[in-house]
Amino acid sequence: MIRKGEKFYLIAGPCAIESEKQLFETVSKIYQNIDYLRAGAYKPRTSPDSFQGLKEEGLKILAKVAKNFNLLTVTEVLDTKDVQLVSSYTDILQIGARNMQNYALLKEVGKIKKPVLLKRGLAATVGEWLSAAEYILSGGNKEVILCERGIRTFSQETRFTLDLAGAVKAAQKSSLPVIIDPSHATGEKDLIESMTLAAKAAGLDGAMIEVHYQPEKAKCDGKQSLTPREFNELYEKL
Amino acid sequence: MIRKGEKFYLIAGPCAIESEKQLFETVSKIYQNIDYLRAGAYKPRTSPDSFQGLKEEGLKILAKVAKNFNLLTVTEVLDTKDVQLVSSYTDILQIGARNMQNYALLKEVGKIKKPVLLKRGLAATVGEWLSAAEYILSGGNKEVILCERGIRTFSQETRFTLDLAGAVKAAQKSSLPVIIDPSHATGEKDLIESMTLAAKAAGLDGAMIEVHYQPEKAKCDGKQSLTPREFNELYEKL
Amino acid sequence: MIRKGEKFYLIAGPCAIESEKQLFETVSKIYQNIDYLRAGAYKPRTSPDSFQGLKEEGLKILAKVAKNFNLLTVTEVLDTKDVQLVSSYTDILQIGARNMQNYALLKEVGKIKKPVLLKRGLAATVGEWLSAAEYILSGGNKEVILCERGIRTFSQETRFTLDLAGAVKAAQKSSLPVIIDPSHATGEKDLIESMTLAAKAAGLDGAMIEVHYQPEKAKCDGKQSLTPREFNELYEKL
Amino acid sequence: MIRKGEKFYLIAGPCAIESEKQLFETVSKIYQNIDYLRAGAYKPRTSPDSFQGLKEEGLKILAKVAKNFNLLTVTEVLDTKDVQLVSSYTDILQIGARNMQNYALLKEVGKIKKPVLLKRGLAATVGEWLSAAEYILSGGNKEVILCERGIRTFSQETRFTLDLAGAVKAAQKSSLPVIIDPSHATGEKDLIESMTLAAKAAGLDGAMIEVHYQPEKAKCDGKQSLTPREFNELYEKL
Repeated sequence: MIRKGEKFYLIAGPCAIESEKQLFETVSKIYQNIDYLRAGAYKPRTSPDSFQGLKEEGLKILAKVAKNFNLLTVTEVLDTKDVQLVSSYTDILQIGARNMQNYALLKEVGKIKKPVLLKRGLAATVGEWLSAAEYILSGGNKEVILCERGIRTFSQETRFTLDLAGAVKAAQKSSLPVIIDPSHATGEKDLIESMTLAAKAAGLDGAMIEVHYQPEKAKCDGKQSLTPREFNELYEKL
Repeated sequence: MIRKGEKFYLIAGPCAIESEKQLFETVSKIYQNIDYLRAGAYKPRTSPDSFQGLKEEGLKILAKVAKNFNLLTVTEVLDTKDVQLVSSYTDILQIGARNMQNYALLKEVGKIKKPVLLKRGLAATVGEWLSAAEYILSGGNKEVILCERGIRTFSQETRFTLDLAGAVKAAQKSSLPVIIDPSHATGEKDLIESMTLAAKAAGLDGAMIEVHYQPEKAKCDGKQSLTPREFNELYEKL
Repeated sequence: MIRKGEKFYLIAGPCAIESEKQLFETVSKIYQNIDYLRAGAYKPRTSPDSFQGLKEEGLKILAKVAKNFNLLTVTEVLDTKDVQLVSSYTDILQIGARNMQNYALLKEVGKIKKPVLLKRGLAATVGEWLSAAEYILSGGNKEVILCERGIRTFSQETRFTLDLAGAVKAAQKSSLPVIIDPSHATGEKDLIESMTLAAKAAGLDGAMIEVHYQPEKAKCDGKQSLTPREFNELYEKL
Repeated sequence: MIRKGEKFYLIAGPCAIESEKQLFETVSKIYQNIDYLRAGAYKPRTSPDSFQGLKEEGLKILAKVAKNFNLLTVTEVLDTKDVQLVSSYTDILQIGARNMQNYALLKEVGKIKKPVLLKRGLAATVGEWLSAAEYILSGGNKEVILCERGIRTFSQETRFTLDLAGAVKAAQKSSLPVIIDPSHATGEKDLIESMTLAAKAAGLDGAMIEVHYQPEKAKCDGKQSLTPREFNELYEKL
């Protein structure tokens, strides 16, 4: 379990599960340096024509590869109807930024017995983020991890604006662990190392980082994915 | 049905259905001046401790009062599991701003035979808004109405920032009707009249306005609700 | 003088004074339909390598062309050192958005006897905008016109976000006239007509619109400039 | 001189020079741990009724106290007319966020022989910030230090949003040193330590921090000022 103030946790893996080979090749190069494997089987994409994920087939690949390397997993759930299914395959359920105020979904994951990683919505205040966590906590599920993944501002030379001070403030105001997602927050691989080091220095609890063994061929977010080698170099600096 | 370029439609009613008396008293004073009655039975509230709506009991009240005044209705749905139920009671289903990128819900309402009023997310670009509409359209449901309800910006002297130019741009780029929600966009009753007149002058297709017969006693959004008298005065100016 | 609540004033002209021919050709086609001629001699440009304006030579052209058509003028001043000079050539001095909190400049124009058109800063609250006006008013100059020209938000499909509700709120909170600049606010000629009609319907006092007789050859802001014919059509609709 | 990549510089001192006693008492407790003393004699305040600074009297106090402790100084200049005067008293001239696009002022400080600390405007992109620096550099003054002081976003639980990734990006794109101002960026003393440690970990060149020997009595920004003891504790952690 991810506990507040204990260590700096690393969650890594590709944006989407594309195939067993893709996941295996990626994980085989980084598994010794990560605490959790992350990869998406249900992908919330802006356009209905974009790759939507492998769904249950992807969950099976995730579970198989994770078992092979003895890793725990994080994966996203999008629909109240899928909560039981996804929960049966993964260790931590992720609620994405677009669903931070999907209260039906928050209530549903509040009923399960697995931790929930709750991303901050891209226009959510810290107060709204903590209130969204309350929807899960008040359902009886006390294991919530908060994840700052960048807010939407006028400044779009980075994909989003990492609100590091907001993340620290959330950590000060609640008893929940708080991590960052520098990959989505910045959208640029050249900023991931500095933001991860900054998050650790600021006292936060971890980072979730996109890694792909062939970023240039990734079905989503290749531009912001580290290679396994780059990830391992970052691990050494931490 | 709300058709693009035909007239300036008025959708009005209280934020939430609180009781049959509350809805009846409100509607009885404005029914002659509105095209659709709006009122919420499922309320997406920031805190789990706030009033969450009367749910199916509210839908029954809505249907009963609407039938009494021979009105068509608009009401919000929050969960994929409730789409069939809500659809059986109302004429138009509303997808709220917080759920604009709840793609599971968009796909579900794409399968039904009733129009969908799609609010713009509070940090959504016009492009993302139109892409969200695509999720519904590509499911086979061609009746989508776009509703601009204010975006979240640094400027918080109004509750949100009404992006009237963005709404006009959405109307230019798509064949769908576009309306505004000045009540949520501004959060102030003193700005509703001017913004509604502005939307009509700008060529948009309508406005959705909160009206409550006793705004000071409303369970939500009382500060931004017009009284029936104020609404009828606005109707005269239009 | 521009007075609050009296009529809907139109201020028009090119972004920059480029030559006597350019200004004369533009003005000759619209002078009957405008209340004030606007054109810049000192241009605040993002890059030091961009065209910076014709400076005093431009002021002379402005005064000459205005006199020929018996028009009053508006032009921008950028430096405290130039206030007296610019004031000697124009009827209204403009403080641009970038200088809204250039308090040295505000104090300087507070000492002169000519009206000041104060644009809202692109990240200024309504309160800060009115406080900036106070700097001018408290210097003894009581003729201030407020101009909303779009604020900077995440939404960048239009150049800026026209905050029409904020402009109406400024008008409600102060005794000063309030106009809009739809050209800078939207950056698109196809949105200028709808926003100008909306501003009039919302009860504001006027609009400042960029017009160039050859927009495709303009040294700045050509994309958002109306042709004289388009401007005159808008005048007719108003 | 502040050089890129050399060390993590600390610039500290009170927001405003209030009296010789105030400055002396503050500096006497921190002078051993700072590289530069900062304090304002000309204060850009939102309201004309707020304390505007001691002006030249303040500059004299600053120079006297700095000489006593053998410190170099940073202070803000607001008006082109004051550049020579301020330059005669200080080692580094500061251009504040409100004046980042006051191009007349940028050109004026481009002509002097002292370094300029250029704060990012609160709605400026990284590109606009670097272009503003170009106005100084192209005048012949090659000593520019960039300072990120928070941008204005919807998120107002902190005073501004510290854009740490944007600051790192500016450092990557230019050859100029880049520091942060965590005091203005967050507006909260409880966030200053974590943001300063984060900036150092991210590879930036320093921090400018408000320190006052009696924050509760400060004429401006007391809420975000560290006490000398708190500042010295932060120094030890760095």
